[in-house]
Amino acid sequence: MLEKLLRLTRKARGDRTLEPLLESCRLLISERGQANVYALAVRVIEGYRQVSAARREAFFAALATEFSPDPEAVLNAATQYAQAPTAQHLAVLTQAVESPRQELIRRINRAPGGTSMLLAMRVDLLGLRKGNPELAAVDADFLHLLTSWFNPGFLRLERVDWQSSAALLEKIIHHEAVHEISGWNDLRRRLQPDRRCYAFFHPQLRDEPLIFVEVALVDEMADAVAPLIESTPDAPDANGAKTAVFYSISNCQPGLRGVSLGNFLIKKVAAQLKTELPQLKTFCTLSPIPGFVRWLDKASTEETGEWAGPLQRVAAWRQRHPVLAEENITHMPKPLRQDLISLGARFLVKQSHEALGDPVARFHLDNGARLERINFAADLSKKGLKQALGLMVNYQYDLSEVELRHQEFVNQKVSHSTAVRRLLKPQA
Amino acid sequence: MLEKLLRLTRKARGDRTLEPLLESCRLLISERGQANVYALAVRVIEGYRQVSAARREAFFAALATEFSPDPEAVLNAATQYAQAPTAQHLAVLTQAVESPRQELIRRINRAPGGTSMLLAMRVDLLGLRKGNPELAAVDADFLHLLTSWFNPGFLRLERVDWQSSAALLEKIIHHEAVHEISGWNDLRRRLQPDRRCYAFFHPQLRDEPLIFVEVALVDEMADAVAPLIESTPDAPDANGAKTAVFYSISNCQPGLRGVSLGNFLIKKVAAQLKTELPQLKTFCTLSPIPGFVRWLDKASTEETGEWAGPLQRVAAWRQRHPVLAEENITHMPKPLRQDLISLGARFLVKQSHEALGDPVARFHLDNGARLERINFAADLSKKGLKQALGLMVNYQYDLSEVELRHQEFVNQKVSHSTAVRRLLKPQA
Amino acid sequence: MLEKLLRLTRKARGDRTLEPLLESCRLLISERGQANVYALAVRVIEGYRQVSAARREAFFAALATEFSPDPEAVLNAATQYAQAPTAQHLAVLTQAVESPRQELIRRINRAPGGTSMLLAMRVDLLGLRKGNPELAAVDADFLHLLTSWFNPGFLRLERVDWQSSAALLEKIIHHEAVHEISGWNDLRRRLQPDRRCYAFFHPQLRDEPLIFVEVALVDEMADAVAPLIESTPDAPDANGAKTAVFYSISNCQPGLRGVSLGNFLIKKVAAQLKTELPQLKTFCTLSPIPGFVRWLDKASTEETGEWAGPLQRVAAWRQRHPVLAEENITHMPKPLRQDLISLGARFLVKQSHEALGDPVARFHLDNGARLERINFAADLSKKGLKQALGLMVNYQYDLSEVELRHQEFVNQKVSHSTAVRRLLKPQA
Amino acid sequence: MLEKLLRLTRKARGDRTLEPLLESCRLLISERGQANVYALAVRVIEGYRQVSAARREAFFAALATEFSPDPEAVLNAATQYAQAPTAQHLAVLTQAVESPRQELIRRINRAPGGTSMLLAMRVDLLGLRKGNPELAAVDADFLHLLTSWFNPGFLRLERVDWQSSAALLEKIIHHEAVHEISGWNDLRRRLQPDRRCYAFFHPQLRDEPLIFVEVALVDEMADAVAPLIESTPDAPDANGAKTAVFYSISNCQPGLRGVSLGNFLIKKVAAQLKTELPQLKTFCTLSPIPGFVRWLDKASTEETGEWAGPLQRVAAWRQRHPVLAEENITHMPKPLRQDLISLGARFLVKQSHEALGDPVARFHLDNGARLERINFAADLSKKGLKQALGLMVNYQYDLSEVELRHQEFVNQKVSHSTAVRRLLKPQA
Repeated sequence: MLEKLLRLTRKARGDRTLEPLLESCRLLISERGQANVYALAVRVIEGYRQVSAARREAFFAALATEFSPDPEAVLNAATQYAQAPTAQHLAVLTQAVESPRQELIRRINRAPGGTSMLLAMRVDLLGLRKGNPELAAVDADFLHLLTSWFNPGFLRLERVDWQSSAALLEKIIHHEAVHEISGWNDLRRRLQPDRRCYAFFHPQLRDEPLIFVEVALVDEMADAVAPLIESTPDAPDANGAKTAVFYSISNCQPGLRGVSLGNFLIKKVAAQLKTELPQLKTFCTLSPIPGFVRWLDKASTEETGEWAGPLQRVAAWRQRHPVLAEENITHMPKPLRQDLISLGARFLVKQSHEALGDPVARFHLDNGARLERINFAADLSKKGLKQALGLMVNYQYDLSEVELRHQEFVNQKVSHSTAVRRLLKPQA
Repeated sequence: MLEKLLRLTRKARGDRTLEPLLESCRLLISERGQANVYALAVRVIEGYRQVSAARREAFFAALATEFSPDPEAVLNAATQYAQAPTAQHLAVLTQAVESPRQELIRRINRAPGGTSMLLAMRVDLLGLRKGNPELAAVDADFLHLLTSWFNPGFLRLERVDWQSSAALLEKIIHHEAVHEISGWNDLRRRLQPDRRCYAFFHPQLRDEPLIFVEVALVDEMADAVAPLIESTPDAPDANGAKTAVFYSISNCQPGLRGVSLGNFLIKKVAAQLKTELPQLKTFCTLSPIPGFVRWLDKASTEETGEWAGPLQRVAAWRQRHPVLAEENITHMPKPLRQDLISLGARFLVKQSHEALGDPVARFHLDNGARLERINFAADLSKKGLKQALGLMVNYQYDLSEVELRHQEFVNQKVSHSTAVRRLLKPQA
Repeated sequence: MLEKLLRLTRKARGDRTLEPLLESCRLLISERGQANVYALAVRVIEGYRQVSAARREAFFAALATEFSPDPEAVLNAATQYAQAPTAQHLAVLTQAVESPRQELIRRINRAPGGTSMLLAMRVDLLGLRKGNPELAAVDADFLHLLTSWFNPGFLRLERVDWQSSAALLEKIIHHEAVHEISGWNDLRRRLQPDRRCYAFFHPQLRDEPLIFVEVALVDEMADAVAPLIESTPDAPDANGAKTAVFYSISNCQPGLRGVSLGNFLIKKVAAQLKTELPQLKTFCTLSPIPGFVRWLDKASTEETGEWAGPLQRVAAWRQRHPVLAEENITHMPKPLRQDLISLGARFLVKQSHEALGDPVARFHLDNGARLERINFAADLSKKGLKQALGLMVNYQYDLSEVELRHQEFVNQKVSHSTAVRRLLKPQA
Repeated sequence: MLEKLLRLTRKARGDRTLEPLLESCRLLISERGQANVYALAVRVIEGYRQVSAARREAFFAALATEFSPDPEAVLNAATQYAQAPTAQHLAVLTQAVESPRQELIRRINRAPGGTSMLLAMRVDLLGLRKGNPELAAVDADFLHLLTSWFNPGFLRLERVDWQSSAALLEKIIHHEAVHEISGWNDLRRRLQPDRRCYAFFHPQLRDEPLIFVEVALVDEMADAVAPLIESTPDAPDANGAKTAVFYSISNCQPGLRGVSLGNFLIKKVAAQLKTELPQLKTFCTLSPIPGFVRWLDKASTEETGEWAGPLQRVAAWRQRHPVLAEENITHMPKPLRQDLISLGARFLVKQSHEALGDPVARFHLDNGARLERINFAADLSKKGLKQALGLMVNYQYDLSEVELRHQEFVNQKVSHSTAVRRLLKPQA
């Protein structure tokens, strides 16, 4: 693998576009560049803009080889530190281990538009990583610094509503990843007084939302998504609501993949809503189960034991309905419904720690939420039918318990309600 | 030295205030704390607030020992990386070397008021470092993260003027470090149309200036400070000015010591002034020479060769005037003036790279400025007389040459004008 | 007529809803009400909200009778003033003539929401005036005060663009009166860099545009509207444009009818564009001729003389095409086109001072614009075909000549270009 | 008197500066000027700027004669209206009576800076009125329009605090009319958490406060001013306060004399404080009695009856202390104190309706406040001693009763507390 990197690096050094760019990078982090960071960073940014997609891998490969820490220097410093862990030795060690790439990234960040450019570079890099795992080291430096810079303490939480600019709302429409927004009228419903939308912004990226969450303020824990997003002539205000349902959370910046913002966003919004509307008693989600059908497919052929019955019954029904439509679900016989819900519970409680488990479940359980209820026929959109046969889940957030529940989840336990526990005994 | 740390650490662990605080710190960076960062960070902040000054050293000592990287793990990772410098090994190495303190600092930063608290903690830490050099490792982690967070790309440059809030202006009065501001009327002069003041702000510290610079917009390169700050009945507007004189630059946040902002501030302000007032031709400073008299004292007794004459003549004059007053300088005989100016040039050109050289000279020369002119009787304040017998310097910034000049300075050369060169031949 | 007023006033005084409202009005302007204006004004506003549509005429009738100046007092004061026009007598006269309604309106205006309510009341009043001309006196008071309060010196000119709030943009879509905006995508075209939209706002009506104008920044004076509003994949920026075409101007507040804002808006926007884009040479409109077909209908039957020929030819063609479609116009034979354009010129030059002339022409000519060019097949929308057989006009604004041209218009002359003059000789 | 006006008018018409200005005024309100209001208004404003102080009277005289309504036209219109009070006749009458000056003022107001200029013109005019009472008619037009434009519904209430701009705070220091602010430190005390300052602003005069009020939030109704304005090391927050004491109210715009804003300001601030701090129970003032000593002087020589005793005793004491110092008051014998307080009550309760009564009392009583308490040795400043021998008053505002109390005051009654009533029986 390293050979590939070295080959690409040689290619970069012989390239008419890349070599000047690398030279600018070297100058930017050199002693001499020190006094001229701003101008040199602008030069790197403009240089990168002119690199064609086909050449980018070579550029990042050069970053991976030439701009990495020197192994020999690292070993010397580590040996000294092991002999005497003094402040002095630690300082030398830290400096030896930090790759010059990090300083490069930090200095690019100082130019106007630097932060945006780094996000764009990382999107390119993420695309290349699949074919070239050794680029992981470069990506690790990007991720390390982006995590530090986009830490929630520096982000601004803002409510998005009908007073927001069209430019921002357009981005919300574009990035909604869970329940598609089909246009401005559809959006308007989600911004009425009994709905909320909050986004995180970074001071350096003025009008670019980083992540946003949509909340419905309702009486009871919602058991289906359609009533939450269907347009309604007159929306009530939020003053009577007892429950805040987080029904959608979407990332807007692919360049921030791996920078965890959702956890903090949910908790900050919950805290803010609680302050504004003290009568709110329950904070929960209405979440999809994107991994459910994938698991069913696998489990149906593998599983024996007490769950074999339900699995086979559901599999048989699915074979009878190869192309699912809304009515197939709504007309499903009652015992089969029960099988389906039980299997949902089984999947989420037992499989959430596995690599092939449900990513949404893992996200909320790891945040310290509790698996509260499985809802039948809750998402009858095409996507909802295909991924989860219409099932959805409520995860419940109790801010005073998230710490404990997260710890349980780390210890391989999934917190769940009594109602869910009852489902874990399958029908014969 | 390490023994002292370990003794203090034991003390901390047995302390009724410190042990709970350390326990909060451990929890905050633990797996379990993950889901509750916000609340735990608040707990650490409040805990630290209650630590008396006398106990702080023990707390930071515990950070230095318990929250440092594990030497054995570091050595293993370094050895592996030395054998095969793969992305995988680099990732393991990086993680092994990063002290858990850094994650602690990052998580404290997420709480509201976290950034302010970290700056306050660092002020405490800087105070303790003198008596306990091993705390340098803890300080290095603070400095590393603060440098990353307070990078100029994230800072907001703002003009400070009479439209600014009284709360902000009061801080400007308080922090002016070069030429004292004696009150609101004195301040007003510095904010009139032919004067400018610019400050950097961080998004997380709304109304706290980090550093500010004061600029006089005048016809010619100023040769004395009094005319720049004396109140005047009717200040002209800035449209006729040809020269921008940076006559004062002051840091406001002692917790940011070592985070270099001044270099970037001067260049950004120069660029902005150039855009706003294209007729400006010269950007220079009018700077003190705080190290001059200290050097004179030393050199007078040590120096032989061609500079011995001027040194002795000045020393003799100084003995005749043990307590300096303004008139002593203004009545100084002409040949002696010449000696003094020449010695100033000699000092700045030859000594600026030495540890005991002039810090202000080092700052501007390292930024890529040129030593342009030495001014006699330029600062007749008490401080100016005492530090430099009234001498001041103009450093000149030419944005198109800062890179080269900085490089020269790194290579032990001091860029200077022809006029200064002429001074380097002392009178017999 | 006055009898009707008196009858309605009696009805109001006997009414369970109206009498308390009138009583609040009396109290509000009474001596006693003085100290409680705020609360009493709120009471009047809430009282009026509960008056059903059917009862409003009686309410306004009561305002017309009970809240009018006392004829006898007026006559006394006028007689005194005629005998000796002193300041003292003028003061008495002025007070005698001002109807108590004005003070009522002024005091209603002090309550929060007062201005909005007055605009709503005026909309009601304008609806009632048609059936009851004596209400004109009440309306005159509204108009007098609204004109004073909404004088352009107090209005804020703001650019409307994609950064504006969705709430505002929605109102722009709704109120566009000239060339319908069919939705958000349609609107976006009108806010791209080579288009502009500006609106006037009143400080008391935060997010309510009063009137707005849409401008296209193009190379040459536009001769058709479709290219100005059709969506285009990539709009150029405005830096190359030489001509600003005002292609739409719409009022948003029916309660401000008669308060002239358009004149000032056009001139202020022209001045602002000139400052921002100094390369702009020509400021003109592309305007409809809403009165053209109405005049054709009339003139065809009445006119003799040299214009009889063209009139009859056009009339014959129209009879052949009773329902007009786009292609009828685009396929019109050339001589007939010439007839049509000439008739357009004839109509606008000769009829613009008449009551049945064209209101748009009157607006621009009275503003001091010049009739510059008649455009064939310029507006092929249904409305454009129906009102003006597709014709549109360019009125040209030269800010240095508006005063003279307005004066000419007042003196019954219509300023027009040489090209238009040539059209005034009809073909045989 | 009219002759003087006519003579001045003739002078104006023959003047090289004034005649062109008058000509601009004529053009501005002419038919022709209609299309060019903006440019012509700018011309009038610039013209007036060049009129020397000595020529202004002639200018205003010309406005008083040439720009007044035509007496004959007025009489005709009034006669017609008296014969038939129709809407039509009222319209003609209204137009005939409105002086062309009003339209002139309205049009000047449309130019940028127009409002400021009108306020400056009015200050000039007020200065001239004393020597030329016939200018009252011109002033009446200014006052009429300014009252309409500066009606409280259009004003913005803003809190002034340490976050306000230095430019604004400087104006507060400058305009404080009741208890002088001696500098920035003195000001700071008045902006601490347990003090408030609120000002009215007009949208057209961005940073110009119109009027401001200072409030102390304290436990009990204050009986002396010094504790309210003396600097204090640590001011408490306002959460425990039960009483809001309005201790100073100052106008900032002499050009708005006669436009009543104070009444509305006090009530709006009281309402806002009540919302923000619901625990506030009492809203009162601590007010000077500027007319007290003036009345004493007069009453001592005139009054017989039961009040002659106290009057003579106080007069005798004053003769013994021709130059008053603080200690004279604080050492005053108890019976004499009682005399003094009683006389204060007597003066305020019985004399407040008279022309020579106390203007501050009239202001608050007319606003609907109640005379609550007379405080001995409450204002020991030079001014306080001279005007009122140190006495101050609390007027109490109860928003639910202001209407009734105002009505009582109009009916020649002064609302007062039981405590004050008891004072109205003098000691023998």
